[in-house]
Amino acid sequence: MFCAAVDWGTSSFRLWLLDRAGMVVAERRSDEGMQHCHRVGFAPVLEAHLAAAGAPTGLPVMICGMAGARQGWQEAGYLDLPARLDTLPEQAIRIAGAAREVFILPGLAQRRAEAPDVIRGEETQLLGVLDASDDTRLFCLPGTHSKWVAVEQGAVTRFATFMTGELFALLSRHSILAHAMPQDMEVREDAPRFLEGVEDGASAPEAATRRLFGLRASQLLGFSDRGDGAAYLSGLLIGVEIAGARAFDGGEKALTLLAGGPLARLYERALTVHGYTVATRDAGEATRRGLHQAALRRWPHCAPVEAAS
Amino acid sequence: MFCAAVDWGTSSFRLWLLDRAGMVVAERRSDEGMQHCHRVGFAPVLEAHLAAAGAPTGLPVMICGMAGARQGWQEAGYLDLPARLDTLPEQAIRIAGAAREVFILPGLAQRRAEAPDVIRGEETQLLGVLDASDDTRLFCLPGTHSKWVAVEQGAVTRFATFMTGELFALLSRHSILAHAMPQDMEVREDAPRFLEGVEDGASAPEAATRRLFGLRASQLLGFSDRGDGAAYLSGLLIGVEIAGARAFDGGEKALTLLAGGPLARLYERALTVHGYTVATRDAGEATRRGLHQAALRRWPHCAPVEAAS
Repeated sequence: MFCAAVDWGTSSFRLWLLDRAGMVVAERRSDEGMQHCHRVGFAPVLEAHLAAAGAPTGLPVMICGMAGARQGWQEAGYLDLPARLDTLPEQAIRIAGAAREVFILPGLAQRRAEAPDVIRGEETQLLGVLDASDDTRLFCLPGTHSKWVAVEQGAVTRFATFMTGELFALLSRHSILAHAMPQDMEVREDAPRFLEGVEDGASAPEAATRRLFGLRASQLLGFSDRGDGAAYLSGLLIGVEIAGARAFDGGEKALTLLAGGPLARLYERALTVHGYTVATRDAGEATRRGLHQAALRRWPHCAPVEAAS
Repeated sequence: MFCAAVDWGTSSFRLWLLDRAGMVVAERRSDEGMQHCHRVGFAPVLEAHLAAAGAPTGLPVMICGMAGARQGWQEAGYLDLPARLDTLPEQAIRIAGAAREVFILPGLAQRRAEAPDVIRGEETQLLGVLDASDDTRLFCLPGTHSKWVAVEQGAVTRFATFMTGELFALLSRHSILAHAMPQDMEVREDAPRFLEGVEDGASAPEAATRRLFGLRASQLLGFSDRGDGAAYLSGLLIGVEIAGARAFDGGEKALTLLAGGPLARLYERALTVHGYTVATRDAGEATRRGLHQAALRRWPHCAPVEAAS
């Protein structure tokens, strides 16, 4: 075994034990994210999962995500732009007083007064999918806080975060629109109301807060069905994101989408409709590969640690 | 005493006892809105307030608002557009089996597939401020669901609802932005960050979901203060509403604003910056006057009911 790789988000924890080639030896998932560990402590949660996964004593650990936020385990700071992704590992901070080597990767900060922005976690996904150190590409990483990232010659030069996923969660569960859709229903990318929402959001983003109420009114007046509510809302918010990304993409329409599952299919469809050529890579795998890359750079000469017999 | 006038909203109840000239004899307020009464019943709440205010037996009651929604006391339906506001009273529905005459005014429905919309409560405010039956004006009624309404020759011809207030409440309390602002802090209309938000929202509404995250990032990176978070958010959402209203106002920039308190001052400032000439009328007074107008039309020959001695 070579290292443990941990993706530690706000509300989720994911651990892989990897060999030197990056192959998965064991894996653990839980909902013990930053918010949970803020109360119970980070070290006990990590050690419990390492033990349960069969990690030997002394196996080093590479972490990315919100565990490195100010309100996390220990603040891992931010790299300023332009940020070469292959320098992330050397800027990782070491947890003081841990029983083994535990590092947390830093995030990225865009310190521009007119477009201040931060990334924490997605930088590691990007590291995991760069093909060469001079890679130049446009990325979209959808999620709670959807990120669009420009990488030039292996360095992140600018990025933009859209609150798409969080708005969907808030509006579908806690607004008047909770009455306008069944809860936790999966949206299909070929649903007509999803595509209608994408079109409305992308073509007239200024009308979005009006369309939100219109979704409810449309049902009250019999123009649409409650079963289609989530599809329209999802499409509308993704459409607004696409409208906002026009000012960001610089005319570049070849896009690498880092996502998985239904969300990947929704974004693929919406982006393709709006002229993007989309290559999709699995987000979870990208994170694991990024952590593995970081571990290889941090511990280049490390001999594998043998599991205790 | 001539009648009781009741503004019965989703989460609020307001009652006035009026004389024939519309002067207020007594007044009651509570948070026993539709959501509360849905559980405990509407009649007992109404009768308790009438008794506490000293209303005589048999005093008729005119109600507007969500008490007339499908999930309210009794559905009062909608008038289709174009809807003459002076026909509202004759379309009021009478509560069956009540101990006295109790009427609920209908709402308005815009049955257009491309812009379905409904109003319930604001139609009564409009009735309260129309100067003559051939009045032609553009109105803005800000709130949880902000309404823009075109009245032509005394009839509502079209309207648009923006979810501005509900978005502010959701984002400021339940999103990541709850960390970005003190709770329940009053926003001042001359706060620079409010005006900056208005400008950002109105000039680039497509960037709004990005600006939302930027508000948090801006504080993390030291570009703005937590104390200004609510001002920026309020400005941004009002700015987006103004951008969306451009497609609605038809170039008309003389606007009657029906609002009160701090909200009136915020909208006055934001609308004036964007070229509107704003005349403000108090929203609560407009509702009371509208209910009084409706009562006069419903009971034109009614003799005043004397209070029991």
